Amino acid sequence: MIIRMKQNAPAKAVEKVIERIKKFNCGAEIIHGREGIDIIGIVGDTSGIDPNVFDEIDEVLEVIRISRPYKRVSREYNPQSRVVKVGELGIGGNELVFMAGPCSIENKPQIVRIAKEVKAAGAQFLRGGAYKPRTSPYSYQGLGVEGLRFMRDAKEATGLPIVTEATGNHRHQLADNSFEQKTVLENVLEYADVIQVGARNMKAYGFLQDLAIESGKRRIPVLLKRGEAATVAEFLLAAEYIVANGNPDVILCLRGIRTFEENKYQRYTSDIAVTAVLKKESNLPVVFDPSHATGYRDLVPAISLAAIAAGADGLMIETHYEPENAASDGQQTVTPPTLAEIIKKALALKKIL
Amino acid sequence: MIIRMKQNAPAKAVEKVIERIKKFNCGAEIIHGREGIDIIGIVGDTSGIDPNVFDEIDEVLEVIRISRPYKRVSREYNPQSRVVKVGELGIGGNELVFMAGPCSIENKPQIVRIAKEVKAAGAQFLRGGAYKPRTSPYSYQGLGVEGLRFMRDAKEATGLPIVTEATGNHRHQLADNSFEQKTVLENVLEYADVIQVGARNMKAYGFLQDLAIESGKRRIPVLLKRGEAATVAEFLLAAEYIVANGNPDVILCLRGIRTFEENKYQRYTSDIAVTAVLKKESNLPVVFDPSHATGYRDLVPAISLAAIAAGADGLMIETHYEPENAASDGQQTVTPPTLAEIIKKALALKKIL
Amino acid sequence: MIIRMKQNAPAKAVEKVIERIKKFNCGAEIIHGREGIDIIGIVGDTSGIDPNVFDEIDEVLEVIRISRPYKRVSREYNPQSRVVKVGELGIGGNELVFMAGPCSIENKPQIVRIAKEVKAAGAQFLRGGAYKPRTSPYSYQGLGVEGLRFMRDAKEATGLPIVTEATGNHRHQLADNSFEQKTVLENVLEYADVIQVGARNMKAYGFLQDLAIESGKRRIPVLLKRGEAATVAEFLLAAEYIVANGNPDVILCLRGIRTFEENKYQRYTSDIAVTAVLKKESNLPVVFDPSHATGYRDLVPAISLAAIAAGADGLMIETHYEPENAASDGQQTVTPPTLAEIIKKALALKKIL
Amino acid sequence: MIIRMKQNAPAKAVEKVIERIKKFNCGAEIIHGREGIDIIGIVGDTSGIDPNVFDEIDEVLEVIRISRPYKRVSREYNPQSRVVKVGELGIGGNELVFMAGPCSIENKPQIVRIAKEVKAAGAQFLRGGAYKPRTSPYSYQGLGVEGLRFMRDAKEATGLPIVTEATGNHRHQLADNSFEQKTVLENVLEYADVIQVGARNMKAYGFLQDLAIESGKRRIPVLLKRGEAATVAEFLLAAEYIVANGNPDVILCLRGIRTFEENKYQRYTSDIAVTAVLKKESNLPVVFDPSHATGYRDLVPAISLAAIAAGADGLMIETHYEPENAASDGQQTVTPPTLAEIIKKALALKKIL
Repeated sequence: MIIRMKQNAPAKAVEKVIERIKKFNCGAEIIHGREGIDIIGIVGDTSGIDPNVFDEIDEVLEVIRISRPYKRVSREYNPQSRVVKVGELGIGGNELVFMAGPCSIENKPQIVRIAKEVKAAGAQFLRGGAYKPRTSPYSYQGLGVEGLRFMRDAKEATGLPIVTEATGNHRHQLADNSFEQKTVLENVLEYADVIQVGARNMKAYGFLQDLAIESGKRRIPVLLKRGEAATVAEFLLAAEYIVANGNPDVILCLRGIRTFEENKYQRYTSDIAVTAVLKKESNLPVVFDPSHATGYRDLVPAISLAAIAAGADGLMIETHYEPENAASDGQQTVTPPTLAEIIKKALALKKIL
Repeated sequence: MIIRMKQNAPAKAVEKVIERIKKFNCGAEIIHGREGIDIIGIVGDTSGIDPNVFDEIDEVLEVIRISRPYKRVSREYNPQSRVVKVGELGIGGNELVFMAGPCSIENKPQIVRIAKEVKAAGAQFLRGGAYKPRTSPYSYQGLGVEGLRFMRDAKEATGLPIVTEATGNHRHQLADNSFEQKTVLENVLEYADVIQVGARNMKAYGFLQDLAIESGKRRIPVLLKRGEAATVAEFLLAAEYIVANGNPDVILCLRGIRTFEENKYQRYTSDIAVTAVLKKESNLPVVFDPSHATGYRDLVPAISLAAIAAGADGLMIETHYEPENAASDGQQTVTPPTLAEIIKKALALKKIL
Repeated sequence: MIIRMKQNAPAKAVEKVIERIKKFNCGAEIIHGREGIDIIGIVGDTSGIDPNVFDEIDEVLEVIRISRPYKRVSREYNPQSRVVKVGELGIGGNELVFMAGPCSIENKPQIVRIAKEVKAAGAQFLRGGAYKPRTSPYSYQGLGVEGLRFMRDAKEATGLPIVTEATGNHRHQLADNSFEQKTVLENVLEYADVIQVGARNMKAYGFLQDLAIESGKRRIPVLLKRGEAATVAEFLLAAEYIVANGNPDVILCLRGIRTFEENKYQRYTSDIAVTAVLKKESNLPVVFDPSHATGYRDLVPAISLAAIAAGADGLMIETHYEPENAASDGQQTVTPPTLAEIIKKALALKKIL
Repeated sequence: MIIRMKQNAPAKAVEKVIERIKKFNCGAEIIHGREGIDIIGIVGDTSGIDPNVFDEIDEVLEVIRISRPYKRVSREYNPQSRVVKVGELGIGGNELVFMAGPCSIENKPQIVRIAKEVKAAGAQFLRGGAYKPRTSPYSYQGLGVEGLRFMRDAKEATGLPIVTEATGNHRHQLADNSFEQKTVLENVLEYADVIQVGARNMKAYGFLQDLAIESGKRRIPVLLKRGEAATVAEFLLAAEYIVANGNPDVILCLRGIRTFEENKYQRYTSDIAVTAVLKKESNLPVVFDPSHATGYRDLVPAISLAAIAAGADGLMIETHYEPENAASDGQQTVTPPTLAEIIKKALALKKIL
């Protein structure tokens, strides 16, 4: 951590900064720059120091973090790539993984049929939402635990492990306005092979903590989606939250970010290059979700391959045999034959890389 | 809702769209544009229609919402401004309100002293955080329910009602790694006069629902902060979530948004003009938080006045007698004398408007 | 300037960095941090050093500028506020300035009438566009030098000095497809009292240089608008370009920035707080343009006052007696009576500050 | 174009809108929505209608463009892909093109050596900057016409056509403070095989017009870089400017956009998915520049392939035999062997697609 004092800051202010540094059992080195500008470098473990501690001293102009605020998920500190295991499958190893399925689980025949078709297309995981966080209170909110049961049926029929989202530790309201007995988290812990944290909850730190503790005990991996305006550092710190609270099996998932770009052409800006950034900065596996990132099914194949080219360890693709009749997100959903085509090309591309 | 077909879309596709429209008990009007472009307007109540239902038909190029997706909080539908009552005080009426206090509650003498000083400076509400959602798992997370008890002491000493944040319906972990008995929401419901939802939780819809139901029963208003990348429409829809689930007393709070601007100069981009937009679009009161928006205490006075000039009904300002020693956010915290100066000028400005 | 080496960078790499530093006649101070991380501070005048010079060494992780890259326009280096003089008027001194007029000059009676009406409303400058940079090649491009002549007529009728935009050093194409004899810059230099550089040209550095040299010779001030995605540092560097090339009389003008916010509610995000940032960082005067920033005339009064509250030295407001029939930007244009009301309130507000 | 009236807008206001529509020789169709909301659709050629014409009527809530504002470059209107010819080479056809070379031309031996090495690596075009638009007035500004002459030498030595940037129609200042005789545009027209318009000048419409006219006469293609905050529609309108002014040979080039992402990890956000969007929306060829987009040489190979996977017709890659000693942008510059590797993989990838 580097502290840049204001021009001509009095020696007293510099001493004040140094005193604070010492409280953290760190050392201080001063560089007297020209033009009366002093720079103070902190020597030691700064991971527990809040930069604000110095920033709030009036004569401090700027506090700059030099080391990364995340440690456990950092490749600099832990160079070895983490391979997250789900049964026989490894995510983040040499093999690409493909997670596919509908945005929303609608009924048992639907999810069983989709499971069979995505398996035939080459997917190794079945994804599907039983709890749907929706921007509008008037939109469809998901089937709840009944949906999870249908997913289990699909798993039994195909052997595909289940990826599904937990939206918090609240109780889900059903279409008849009654509430489920258990919390969403409790239900999902019971059924999921991989628990997804959606972009909207990436900064719900209380929930992340509960989730990390409970999923860690049961050794269920967490697929953490990047918040739509989370910086790379914040994203990795959210992963660090989960790891620090007891679950080392975190899969990072990119799904587009919010920028000035018009959503007439794309739903989000696809953060494809961040795939490469994350592989360099972090030791965790990275999966890309081209369905949410683009929002349009005709863009999904190209962006799927782009993400693989950028170094992704896998893809999560919304798939339905009748996208036009899907309960949600149909316009970004591909059919199983398109999925098969994407997987075929992705595997060929992987060989080139 | 308006549907724009692709050029030369076949009549069959148009019929398909119209069929779907009819399922929602709405009518359809077609405009045959030049160059083979058909436009279909939906006549009727479209609030329950998900635009995706049409977007996923291949021949549909774009679906455009013409009416606003929020109704209850919309000034167009409910022109009367809502005045949120807290005891004798009204937020959103003719009087400005000022909420002040520390970022974190540290101990009883601290919060009692601050309460007295902000009251003397002219504030009518005491704000303070017992539960602190922090970006890093290694940062200070707040005193928990003990902090809430100190706040009650401060309330008893001054009569100031309490504004404090609920971070979710999880259980809080204390410094000794034990967990509180009740959930954060349960505790906050017991102590708060106004419950704050932070920017990080604005899209945690499951939590919003629980909060709305419980706070609605007890008639405790909710101060809802805008998410750092939430659009105006999403922000108003989050408010609509709370109102639709049983609590009409929502106060909107702006606290800066995330943009390309360098955080070397400001922590966030101050969304001051959105104050005026919200007053026009919505019937709810609007409070501005210049502390988080700017991140630097020397910018707080100017931005406070700018927000009032833009039409804010009040301000929420982080205040501490010793900002440099505050447990968190000290660099954006003002002293009680500065607060008094801001309030004085804000009241003078209000007279001009 | 601070250089952060990668973990365990070899001593040879550090030496390489130091050698380069010495080439710039600067000194180097090394901090050996824990965990094998070395930090090198550069001591001396770094204003001429391109950070890339170090960044391109593989073992360098990050290069951080500690001093600001702008000097002449920086308050840290030149604390005295610059008051830009136009005849008797001073911009950046104690008095607020108001620049008003139509987006486009349409004909002589129009601009003369508007000049008279904005003067009566309290404006001290007449603004109007003869050259209009338009996003679409099919939109109205402005009257050209004929418009400038009409502006001079309006100036003669009212005494108001003229603010008008130069769009580059190209020759303007007229409605009959012929080209003007002189370049736009040559024409504007002949007629303007203050030359405006629009947001779209803020980074057209070749043009900035020509403009600075020519306007500097004639002592005509430049009103520089912030680019829609220019950082504060880039904006001040563009001002530095003009000052360094011979024209110290630069007025900074804010007009909104491009962010994720929906342009359904506002044309741009109003960067009101940057007014306060610029007054702190720079010694130059700051004017705010609420017309472009908001894009809607009913937001203009509130945002005008917000900008003054944030510390602006003046306002530039699009004004027309018949906004609905203006040749361009009518929806963001106010009438002279509204202008008068804004000016009255702004002056009252200034007294409070 | 669709006009959405405010709720309960009086019939008179609707008539006013219709009158205006008729002035443009278009027809109007009215949809009377429920809740007193009228929608007016314009039937006919709306490409010459400025939406503001309606927006400025008070009872109009919103004006929505339904057809795209660009025509000539639009795939909807002109489905046939344009292949831009440079000698024997075609850009936008079946073959990928690779443009490589240094950021800045430094001297004759440098550019000749690089030309030979990039040719050997598989590049078909030599890129290099003689005029460098730099953010700081204190940075290196380029060799000027002398650099262009060195490029011609390199072209003679290798046969590679030249891609180089014109920065405007100003005269370039040399290191000795003298000015070149001809303008930058005149010089570049004389030497370039493809003229690059940089991101900073994408909205300098006066310059675009001059450039289009002059390059169109000489049949020199233009490579137009997307502005760092230009929307897709604005980017295509800038291309439309060039085409409408006489030069149909426009190559679109993406080079990253400015968003909230930290430039500690990437210089810009790589807009890779926009490659696919542009190929769908427009008939023009698309080239991707991974050097500027990422800013770090170790990210360049992955992002190069990602862009090809997303559908790019080619790449523009900064290449130097000694990146660490390059006059500018060394940290994002790759070596010829890396370039060869990228080209090899890109060609293999193209076969899969």
